[in-house]
Amino acid sequence: MDTYLAVDVGGTQIRAAIYPSEGVHPLTVKRTTTQATTADGRGNTPLERLLWLIDSLWEAEHPPKVLVVAAPSPVNPHGVVLEAPNIPGWVNFPLKDELQKRFEVPIAIGNDANLAALGEWKFGAGQGHHHLIYLTISTGIGGGVIVNDQLLLGDNGLAGELGHITVLPDGPACGCGHYGHLEAVASGTAIARWVEEQIAQGRPTTLGNTLPITSKQVAQAALGGDALAKEAIQRAAHFLGQALADFIHIFNPSLVILGGGVAQSGALLFEPLRQSIHQHIMAPGFLERLEIAPAAFGDEAGLIGALALGRSLISSGAINK
Amino acid sequence: MDTYLAVDVGGTQIRAAIYPSEGVHPLTVKRTTTQATTADGRGNTPLERLLWLIDSLWEAEHPPKVLVVAAPSPVNPHGVVLEAPNIPGWVNFPLKDELQKRFEVPIAIGNDANLAALGEWKFGAGQGHHHLIYLTISTGIGGGVIVNDQLLLGDNGLAGELGHITVLPDGPACGCGHYGHLEAVASGTAIARWVEEQIAQGRPTTLGNTLPITSKQVAQAALGGDALAKEAIQRAAHFLGQALADFIHIFNPSLVILGGGVAQSGALLFEPLRQSIHQHIMAPGFLERLEIAPAAFGDEAGLIGALALGRSLISSGAINK
Repeated sequence: MDTYLAVDVGGTQIRAAIYPSEGVHPLTVKRTTTQATTADGRGNTPLERLLWLIDSLWEAEHPPKVLVVAAPSPVNPHGVVLEAPNIPGWVNFPLKDELQKRFEVPIAIGNDANLAALGEWKFGAGQGHHHLIYLTISTGIGGGVIVNDQLLLGDNGLAGELGHITVLPDGPACGCGHYGHLEAVASGTAIARWVEEQIAQGRPTTLGNTLPITSKQVAQAALGGDALAKEAIQRAAHFLGQALADFIHIFNPSLVILGGGVAQSGALLFEPLRQSIHQHIMAPGFLERLEIAPAAFGDEAGLIGALALGRSLISSGAINK
Repeated sequence: MDTYLAVDVGGTQIRAAIYPSEGVHPLTVKRTTTQATTADGRGNTPLERLLWLIDSLWEAEHPPKVLVVAAPSPVNPHGVVLEAPNIPGWVNFPLKDELQKRFEVPIAIGNDANLAALGEWKFGAGQGHHHLIYLTISTGIGGGVIVNDQLLLGDNGLAGELGHITVLPDGPACGCGHYGHLEAVASGTAIARWVEEQIAQGRPTTLGNTLPITSKQVAQAALGGDALAKEAIQRAAHFLGQALADFIHIFNPSLVILGGGVAQSGALLFEPLRQSIHQHIMAPGFLERLEIAPAAFGDEAGLIGALALGRSLISSGAINK
């Protein structure tokens, strides 16, 4: 049986899964931490640990048709990881070449959010759409866009950085070093930081004074009726709606998919978000056929995205069957 | 000989040109005002005048292979002009159907800025690029994007509204009714309005007190060393650079083309614009292969864009030869 080996490298853990030729249910899943906490025999660097994980799943007599790795970084067309802030040493890191030294199967590397968009389009919430925007809102904000039934990659594979548009000039610092980006005002990190600032200024809340506060705590407090927590989510939703209106004016998609931990807040986020989109959209025609939907896949979005890329590389003939 | 009939409908005038099967030099060009100023026998409504202009060029024995009209509005896939603010009565206006009643050749309608992007890509500054952004900066700001060698149209033909992204929340009102859009802070109209506001507040300038001031006057005063005029252009360039950094993060193009009257200011605009892009870009990889170039075509951008669409409809087989 043909199999596909998908790997998702995150800042905390690396996951690998073997998938069959059909469907999205893995035959095997295995994981390890990205960095060694003890001498666990799995290697010291993220690359060594990635190699260990793949080795431990590898069946030499039945190698996969293709190995695809999702990385938390822009990735260029040569499989070079340009800058993964959460993975020590992965700056201009030739991941594809490193893997190809060890494994003699076709290998592809992609940005995790781009691949998640591809996965949602092929197997999840985006099936049947030709133009869609995928946004994942968690620690940071990542994005991926399907245009004319193709993943938007751009000239050098860097496209789809939807978290890094300026929504509030002179706003808070972003993880990328710039100011007022969408990620800096609407990610889980940004929500939690804003609440901490408000508490420091003396605003009352049920959240208590134990720092740091997490965006999950904020969501729970908001569900419990805490006014400050509700305002924090509404504020993030306002900027998300402003940015999504921008993206809708740019792409005119038929679907916006929202993934990541923050998007699991449900109506708490989606209601003010819809209001903000309506408030910011320039003409009703953009909304006539537009759906806004939660992502179908959660933590496994990167793996399923890697699977989607692997399958499409085989079916398109880009990689020989 | 095969010919192509291209028409560009603007708020002030309508231009029509017959092109041969090769090249971008028209065989014939003819124009009329969009609205009747006197009883000139060309019709009273913009549609009547458009029909008159086409009729006057029409050779019944040698009809064109295709008739393409560029309109100053989003246009849906059925050739309906959704909202042309400068053309009375053209709201949800079925232009393609109206033309098809009279002319029995294949007809296509497109947004003028989208078509201009297509024209620059096929015949102008964008030749050889696979991913480019085109921005036209004049009274308003229009845009068009080429992604993977295709014009970005979106689900309903409305994509590419690059002038309508929010760059300054709570900023000045935009022509579309919203606030702080790129068009509202960096178009020719916005530049002139900002200078007028500064003069009203008592800022010294060589521009004099005769209102209204035009963006062309501002550009000339800036070239002459006027500090207020220079600041006005630099301010627009700053916001253009911020928005272009957004677009570059989203699309990762290899080329940005700037057209329209304001882009003719040369180094006066381009120098601070380049600085602003560098200031706002999140990673140097986005700039490695990026070129920024002035448009090859000026006033004829819409006509040449319509020609480009006509040729591609024929060569792709979308319209029968």
